[in-house]
Amino acid sequence: MPYLLVSTLVRLEIGPTIVGDEQSDPDLMTKIGAVLGQQKGCPFKEYTVSDPPRIVLNKLEKLGYSVINTSGIGQTIVWTLHKPISE
Amino acid sequence: MPYLLVSTLVRLEIGPTIVGDEQSDPDLMTKIGAVLGQQKGCPFKEYTVSDPPRIVLNKLEKLGYSVINTSGIGQTIVWTLHKPISE
Amino acid sequence: MPYLLVSTLVRLEIGPTIVGDEQSDPDLMTKIGAVLGQQKGCPFKEYTVSDPPRIVLNKLEKLGYSVINTSGIGQTIVWTLHKPISE
Amino acid sequence: MPYLLVSTLVRLEIGPTIVGDEQSDPDLMTKIGAVLGQQKGCPFKEYTVSDPPRIVLNKLEKLGYSVINTSGIGQTIVWTLHKPISE
Amino acid sequence: MPYLLVSTLVRLEIGPTIVGDEQSDPDLMTKIGAVLGQQKGCPFKEYTVSDPPRIVLNKLEKLGYSVINTSGIGQTIVWTLHKPISE
Repeated sequence: MPYLLVSTLVRLEIGPTIVGDEQSDPDLMTKIGAVLGQQKGCPFKEYTVSDPPRIVLNKLEKLGYSVINTSGIGQTIVWTLHKPISE
Repeated sequence: MPYLLVSTLVRLEIGPTIVGDEQSDPDLMTKIGAVLGQQKGCPFKEYTVSDPPRIVLNKLEKLGYSVINTSGIGQTIVWTLHKPISE
Repeated sequence: MPYLLVSTLVRLEIGPTIVGDEQSDPDLMTKIGAVLGQQKGCPFKEYTVSDPPRIVLNKLEKLGYSVINTSGIGQTIVWTLHKPISE
Repeated sequence: MPYLLVSTLVRLEIGPTIVGDEQSDPDLMTKIGAVLGQQKGCPFKEYTVSDPPRIVLNKLEKLGYSVINTSGIGQTIVWTLHKPISE
Repeated sequence: MPYLLVSTLVRLEIGPTIVGDEQSDPDLMTKIGAVLGQQKGCPFKEYTVSDPPRIVLNKLEKLGYSVINTSGIGQTIVWTLHKPISE
């Protein structure tokens, strides 16, 4: 599971931060304190943590992931992270 | 065909994910489970897979592609992938 | 002329793709099949090709250019390419 | 604390520049002249400096941070910086 | 002054291109033909050149700067450039 997508809405200084979809690795999600939930009226589940994204990125770096890229779409900012397969 | 464009609309946690245009390599498209289709009222065809983008990126990495960059345009997020010609 | 800007409007799966301004290298523009034109009411000229951007990026790679970065602005997506001066 | 997020609103040529959240390293924040404050009606605090972002990026580079990526979301531009853990 | 921000509005094929703020290095600004000015109703000054961004990026590359990243915010596209301190 080398690629990870981390995203947050509008503001960078507070959580929650979205860190995974329903098929994400549950062990990894547990390690960074993520909880699988579903927003009202939303047809799918997602993993979120209450930390702001900066802290999530630092946690993920300790697990071998680094930021490949970031993107803004609408009011959402997305970090694409990657962990080499060989690690 | 070293460059690939992968895109998705608005949400990162569900598919479909768009992975090719009508001239994309059909073998590669088949390998990642993509289907060529056409949306109503859309003047061109495109390849899509039902997986969310994270899973598509991981499949493509196993085939030698890595993420060069990502961009948000309007409500769409685009990953530009690349596979070295020599591979 | 080491930097190149390639852009397209909204959809990734069809052309035209914009590849140059009026001062772009005419030899390079010819090599990738670009034509200098001017849209109605537009105060400047630009080079375009009819291919979708994926195919343009692959053509440019064969000429020594690689994608440095991509950006979305409004409904436009822009790829910044670069070719080392020494090549 | 290897990742840092630096952001600014709309214009690049003036400050203030946002450089941290409430849990940011206070020593680092002091070194770059950042002050912890809270905007009216905003439920959280943030560190800001009065310099434009170019000057902030140059200060942070002297402290070992380099720009990994930039993103535009709405009217905000975000620089993701990184300092290797080993430094 | 290792980081530089270059930006332009909406279209890539014409200038002006914004290359600096009031505290930018005047020698560097002169070398690339930039002029310090102030738009009506704008509370700060900025350096601009009349060239389109592609030509500005090529000039800056000859002075040791390379593109680290690009971002779209609203109708503006921003290139973040960097020149290693040691150069």
